[in-house]
Amino acid sequence: MELQMYAPILGIIGFIIAIVTYTKVKAQPIGNDKMKEISESIHLGAMAFLRREYQVLAIFIVLVFFLILLGMGFQTALAFVGGALCSMTCGFIGMKAATRANVRTAEAARASGQAAALLVSFNGGAVMGLAVASLGLVGVGIAFILFGDPETAKYINGFAMGASSIALFARVGGGIYTKAADVGADLVGKVEAGIPEDDPRNPGVIADNVGDCVGDTAGMGADIFESYVGSIIATVAIAAAAGPTLLDLLSVPGIDHEALRANAMVLPLVLAMVGLVFSVIGIYSMRVFKSIDPAKALHYTTFVGAGGFLIAAFFVIRALHISNGVFWAILAGTLAGVAIGQITEYYTASTPVARIAEASKTGPATNIIHGLAVGLESCAPPILIICVSIFVANHFAGLYGIGIAAVGMLATVGVTMTVDAYGPIADNAGGISEMAGLGPDVRKITDGLDAIGNTTAAIGKGFAIGSAALTALALFSAYATTVQLETINLINPSTVIGLLIGGALPFFIGALTMTSVGRAAGKMVDEIRRQFREIPGLLEGHPDAKPEPDKCVDISARAALREMVLPGVVAVFAPVLVGFLLGAEALGGMLAGATVAGVLLALMMSNGGGAWDNAKKYIEKGELAGEGKGGEAHKAAVVGDTVGDPFKDTSGPSMNILIKLMSVVALVIAPLLI
Amino acid sequence: MELQMYAPILGIIGFIIAIVTYTKVKAQPIGNDKMKEISESIHLGAMAFLRREYQVLAIFIVLVFFLILLGMGFQTALAFVGGALCSMTCGFIGMKAATRANVRTAEAARASGQAAALLVSFNGGAVMGLAVASLGLVGVGIAFILFGDPETAKYINGFAMGASSIALFARVGGGIYTKAADVGADLVGKVEAGIPEDDPRNPGVIADNVGDCVGDTAGMGADIFESYVGSIIATVAIAAAAGPTLLDLLSVPGIDHEALRANAMVLPLVLAMVGLVFSVIGIYSMRVFKSIDPAKALHYTTFVGAGGFLIAAFFVIRALHISNGVFWAILAGTLAGVAIGQITEYYTASTPVARIAEASKTGPATNIIHGLAVGLESCAPPILIICVSIFVANHFAGLYGIGIAAVGMLATVGVTMTVDAYGPIADNAGGISEMAGLGPDVRKITDGLDAIGNTTAAIGKGFAIGSAALTALALFSAYATTVQLETINLINPSTVIGLLIGGALPFFIGALTMTSVGRAAGKMVDEIRRQFREIPGLLEGHPDAKPEPDKCVDISARAALREMVLPGVVAVFAPVLVGFLLGAEALGGMLAGATVAGVLLALMMSNGGGAWDNAKKYIEKGELAGEGKGGEAHKAAVVGDTVGDPFKDTSGPSMNILIKLMSVVALVIAPLLI
Repeated sequence: MELQMYAPILGIIGFIIAIVTYTKVKAQPIGNDKMKEISESIHLGAMAFLRREYQVLAIFIVLVFFLILLGMGFQTALAFVGGALCSMTCGFIGMKAATRANVRTAEAARASGQAAALLVSFNGGAVMGLAVASLGLVGVGIAFILFGDPETAKYINGFAMGASSIALFARVGGGIYTKAADVGADLVGKVEAGIPEDDPRNPGVIADNVGDCVGDTAGMGADIFESYVGSIIATVAIAAAAGPTLLDLLSVPGIDHEALRANAMVLPLVLAMVGLVFSVIGIYSMRVFKSIDPAKALHYTTFVGAGGFLIAAFFVIRALHISNGVFWAILAGTLAGVAIGQITEYYTASTPVARIAEASKTGPATNIIHGLAVGLESCAPPILIICVSIFVANHFAGLYGIGIAAVGMLATVGVTMTVDAYGPIADNAGGISEMAGLGPDVRKITDGLDAIGNTTAAIGKGFAIGSAALTALALFSAYATTVQLETINLINPSTVIGLLIGGALPFFIGALTMTSVGRAAGKMVDEIRRQFREIPGLLEGHPDAKPEPDKCVDISARAALREMVLPGVVAVFAPVLVGFLLGAEALGGMLAGATVAGVLLALMMSNGGGAWDNAKKYIEKGELAGEGKGGEAHKAAVVGDTVGDPFKDTSGPSMNILIKLMSVVALVIAPLLI
Repeated sequence: MELQMYAPILGIIGFIIAIVTYTKVKAQPIGNDKMKEISESIHLGAMAFLRREYQVLAIFIVLVFFLILLGMGFQTALAFVGGALCSMTCGFIGMKAATRANVRTAEAARASGQAAALLVSFNGGAVMGLAVASLGLVGVGIAFILFGDPETAKYINGFAMGASSIALFARVGGGIYTKAADVGADLVGKVEAGIPEDDPRNPGVIADNVGDCVGDTAGMGADIFESYVGSIIATVAIAAAAGPTLLDLLSVPGIDHEALRANAMVLPLVLAMVGLVFSVIGIYSMRVFKSIDPAKALHYTTFVGAGGFLIAAFFVIRALHISNGVFWAILAGTLAGVAIGQITEYYTASTPVARIAEASKTGPATNIIHGLAVGLESCAPPILIICVSIFVANHFAGLYGIGIAAVGMLATVGVTMTVDAYGPIADNAGGISEMAGLGPDVRKITDGLDAIGNTTAAIGKGFAIGSAALTALALFSAYATTVQLETINLINPSTVIGLLIGGALPFFIGALTMTSVGRAAGKMVDEIRRQFREIPGLLEGHPDAKPEPDKCVDISARAALREMVLPGVVAVFAPVLVGFLLGAEALGGMLAGATVAGVLLALMMSNGGGAWDNAKKYIEKGELAGEGKGGEAHKAAVVGDTVGDPFKDTSGPSMNILIKLMSVVALVIAPLLI
């Protein structure tokens, strides 16, 4: 049996493990009626939003299906639908698991303590992690079995485009949803009314908790799913179109070029299989680690997965008669991912945070100035690391090396995504325990898990950006190879025009998403103010006074669905327009410009937002001498945190997908531009 | 006599007109003793800073002189010193004129009314405008006469490098100086103590007014001087190295290639001469327009200059036997400049400003979110305009067209710079009339002139960015031509590495400058608080209580001088490092990356900052229903304005120079990279 045949089989096994994990999570005790009621509201709100979102997406998918059918033929169109459906399924399952795991984490924290709570939330995240990895493998595997010959490999690109388009909508829509709710609830609740976070009197709290699932879980899942399949597919495309120079670089004595090409095409798929196996092992290792410090436990599971994968990858490459250089490229990619995570942690948890907190003493303006400075500053080190990994990967394995480095970074996505998805579950668990009044002891456990979740989320975002950058470059290389350009020449003014337009797009999408959040948050503020004003006894906490959270949920949902359309349409059609109007070289310039500007903006926004968030927490914890919760410096820091919210959770993450989606679209239409 | 011989002659005539104008301004009445005293403080503070800045620069110039001497030979090193000295002379003269004109504008407003005040401030600006245009012509003219042959033309590049390095230090140093003072004075004076802007009790007010001269006059002058000479020199370099295809495109029947090359090399210089003549006419036309609406008068003088120039340019091109296409390129550049100015005006004075003001109702956080969104949004239209002008210029005249479009945009710099330099003089005049207690009638006139100055400053910044973008692209083309690269290939990973590093640099410089302002403003806040606390009766306005403005001036000056060094060193040495370590192609990628990211950040920061500033003014003028000065929305808007200050006056403008300086350095070292 050929190697690719194992991909869907292994994928299905992984998927079964995901479903089993889900059933196990669901079998955990749910707690008292109040908790059940709250969690049901969050669950219903999240699933209702997802349903409405998918209705909008269905129209988009049908429309684009026909466009691709006309332009590129049936195979690509079919692959497109496959990619879209896989991505949507991941989101659906991950969200179901997250909204089931949140309340059970709170109950585990109440009944059995930290270790049990950690395990429940981690398993909740593992459903998403495994779904992403295994559905990716099933989808790309089947596409590869159908279209795995060098001549037909181009059809597989449609799968990546399907995954990418869904990802953009999910990220942008989810990001707007969650931040409109968060900013609105905080501005009225915490700042104006002076009631605590997640207070049940606040009508926006349910929407805020729904938003955590919608944005951080479903959005992040779609983003990583896209990088995962995008990196595999780009590498397949590069291998399919590789010329003799590249094949020479990859070869070992005793293998001919076409056999090598076939092996190089199947390698990314095999690595993904190996990565899935070690992800499962990493996830199960949590049973061993659950009683140690949770932050360490989360790190160790990732290390188990990544370490095992690297060792196995070395032997797989040998077995496929491919040069050892490919292993060095993979190692470079993996190390780059770790290093970017460390830098992200530094900028969002160390000296820079203290600097912002210190600047809060002179008011919100200096807090913002320093936060922006930290965001801007945090761009350079990750970029240098990405440059080093490009250099190493290219040195050892040419353009193929850049693609396979991204694959290596993402192969253990099963476990890295688990750690990512754990964060919002812990966050939600904290919200539920506050709303259900489970008391300070429980809240302390969930707060502890949530705090770790914030750090892992920041690291996860750094990882997402790093992998997006490498994936985008791999897709860019695949585009250049497919479109049969010898050069994309920057001396040619049309390339420069493409570069400038490409660079402007992330700024434009950033503007759209920031405005959307600002506008929707404004409406949310008005609605929450209205409820506090018009519902008698609500603010005073009278037991008969019930808030109307559904109205807030609806405001967020409407805003998200309306505002996600334009960015998505721009990202899909801009490359098509530039490609056909200005030519293949200009389109290449556009991709390069979008990647540079997009990665930089993403880094600036994510890190700046994370640093603002933690500067606020730093003051709340009393670490800024002479200041504390409620003081002037804290108020200033709350302003920074609020500005950082759409930065780190809406606009910043949208950039990753924007650049990948544009590159994928370019790759899909490449055959028409030759 | 050859055409280039006229350049220094005309330049010297222009310079004499500048000096005559200066004497005329100085001959105006200075007002009462109080005014004299205040203006003397500003004058002394500004000149003292300039002296200290130039001492630091002298060390830098000597150092780099020897480095260039070793690397590139004596001619380039000599040209470098020439460029640096010309730029410094411009700054010195412009600053002298500005600090003399400010108090006389206030006195003219008091004694004779608006028309007289407009004329004095305009003439004060004209000294700077004429100095920039004429010294540029003298310097480049002499360099051209010495090194005007195609083989020696490369030495002229040193002149541009000299001008560029001084510009970066002047912009960064001036920008930090002015905003540290402004932010510090505002935070304590307006926000904490609740005293009006420019109140004589505030010890930071003198530093703030010195800062207006140092940053807005000297900094802007050095920036535009650099674009002016940079565009001319880049175009000369492109013509000097033009291949037969380009020469064919530029030729008309009956001229051979070498004669055409000589004409194409001298054309930018001739256009600069023509531009100077029409600038003088434009400046003198103010005598006719001074009594109409000042905003219109300022526009008309620019139109007189630019209109006359365009007509003359058409005939000059014909006379030199160069294709009409070159005229279309110039027209494209000029129209692009006007259009970018209009867009800047839209974003900093229209609907977007109202949007930010509206968002201020829900507090500083939403004000900041919307301001950032406006800044991000404002990037796309100017970029599209730049793309169109590149397309047109290249279509009609190839790479030479891009260079000559920049020259066309900047040829009438004499009058455009006059309008730019008028703003800070009017601003200062307002400060002096407040401090000297000249009463509301005078203040109304100076406020009116200042408000127009804000708009012209915003337009001027848009123009500076547009011209910087075209100049950087022209320099980039000149670099590519000089280094004899057929392609700068984006498929080559080392180009991509260069692109990424280049893109990260503007973010890094942005971080450095924002942090510097934040830190220096913090020190300023501490000092002003101390004076209010320790000097008895100061805050109450007791006549014997004198503030100690010198200490504030010293804080700004020290911060500026210390913090300007690192950005300058990075900008000069980064291209050298990348060029020698990664090669000529990677350096080309780096320039492209820096240009894209730099132009975008500059647009975002300048426009966002301008919009915040005007949103605050919008509320102060009572145009936001139900809100006014001192209300909650106004307080939120003050936060936005304070954040916008370093955006629009420090970090944003630094980007223009960063990208030009890096391109110039690359152009200078190009012969070593072949």
